[in-house]
Amino acid sequence: MTDDTDLQGRLEAIEGRLRLVEDQAALSQLVATYGPAVDSGSADSAAGLWHEDGVFDVVPMFELVGHEGIAGMVNGDGHQSLIHNGCGHVLTAPKLAIDGDDASGWNYAFNIRWDAAADRFWIARLSANEWQFRRDPGGWRVVRRTNINLDGTPAPRDLLRHAAEQPPDF
Amino acid sequence: MTDDTDLQGRLEAIEGRLRLVEDQAALSQLVATYGPAVDSGSADSAAGLWHEDGVFDVVPMFELVGHEGIAGMVNGDGHQSLIHNGCGHVLTAPKLAIDGDDASGWNYAFNIRWDAAADRFWIARLSANEWQFRRDPGGWRVVRRTNINLDGTPAPRDLLRHAAEQPPDF
Amino acid sequence: MTDDTDLQGRLEAIEGRLRLVEDQAALSQLVATYGPAVDSGSADSAAGLWHEDGVFDVVPMFELVGHEGIAGMVNGDGHQSLIHNGCGHVLTAPKLAIDGDDASGWNYAFNIRWDAAADRFWIARLSANEWQFRRDPGGWRVVRRTNINLDGTPAPRDLLRHAAEQPPDF
Repeated sequence: MTDDTDLQGRLEAIEGRLRLVEDQAALSQLVATYGPAVDSGSADSAAGLWHEDGVFDVVPMFELVGHEGIAGMVNGDGHQSLIHNGCGHVLTAPKLAIDGDDASGWNYAFNIRWDAAADRFWIARLSANEWQFRRDPGGWRVVRRTNINLDGTPAPRDLLRHAAEQPPDF
Repeated sequence: MTDDTDLQGRLEAIEGRLRLVEDQAALSQLVATYGPAVDSGSADSAAGLWHEDGVFDVVPMFELVGHEGIAGMVNGDGHQSLIHNGCGHVLTAPKLAIDGDDASGWNYAFNIRWDAAADRFWIARLSANEWQFRRDPGGWRVVRRTNINLDGTPAPRDLLRHAAEQPPDF
Repeated sequence: MTDDTDLQGRLEAIEGRLRLVEDQAALSQLVATYGPAVDSGSADSAAGLWHEDGVFDVVPMFELVGHEGIAGMVNGDGHQSLIHNGCGHVLTAPKLAIDGDDASGWNYAFNIRWDAAADRFWIARLSANEWQFRRDPGGWRVVRRTNINLDGTPAPRDLLRHAAEQPPDF
């Protein structure tokens, strides 16, 4: 007979490991939804990636607070002009650090724009991004995303150093 | 003693969850193979990512049908010229929606070209992509991929809206 | 009663499958750490992604050997100048092939630089990358990374062909 205590421990270990790879996948999917949401002008979907009181800090341009703030950016003249002229918000797969119901992530985000006259795209912005996530009963959502242009100033290097300090292979 | 009914249910739940994360990984790997296949001129490998009757619709330029159509594009003068002048087809990790043996995905694809005279690359195309996948006994393959340049027209926004309508964190 | 032999086989199959998706995630995380490490100037973190005797071959410019060689590149004048002028090393999610404690990977890496006068970024390099990984008791680390510019010469196509020869969906 299998010893019940051993079996319980083995199943719990499996379930814990499975939970962690599910969390990695879920957080990667959350991040992968941002570009399609804003580039399609889906203001509510974009805002819904954050918690109701979440923050999107685009340094040093503006800090968006809550669903209303984030949806307002997507519906605003600036963003609408971008997507109607041709624009892609292209994000890379994040480096992640997960601790129970809290997590952090770091990745790059391109803001790329179509130039019809030149028949090519150009890179308006390449930012370093730091994400804080929290799981609640509805799933993982963003608590705060900080986005800083990689323009040679120290701030984006300081942000990316947090990722470099994580264990390399999860 | 462990109750057998409880144990069976617990194992089945684990196996179902495991299947889903394996599917996410497999679909991500399928998408990650496209760039290396076409940039190395591996026509059969590129075509083999699709089902035999699969479609690759590059809006509004051409619609490739089946393995022969896709391999023909890779072996064609246009593509061969690109890769012999220096070119990268760079795809991002996809947002996914999996439903049993069917799945959908959305991501971005760069077409980037080397300019030897300027000693730099330029972005010829940045497209929104929608993928339909189907699993058969041989594994996951592409049923249809639609690729539309993000040039400010409504079509790529309409395509990306399908991704924005998915649950955010899988 | 559940038959013990059946149960053991079922649990071992689950644990083996789980190990493989964990390995995929760990290798993806390892690769996702490179950009943040070098763009923040974290020389020891960047070097620590490799085994102590690992190699980073940047064809045809230089071959870095071991932690000292890789950390030396990050701390060197050339790299320090890049990151203080604004630079992003942006890597895509890798195609992977895992075989026990050995693995290979292939992806793209951008070297993107800020041009303050033009108020935009430019793409200095887009390389094809091949990675060899080995797991030891400390986890997965890089044995060798080869990086070749996609400039139309045959070498990067030959490298990417190795990825195209892998099973498409893992």
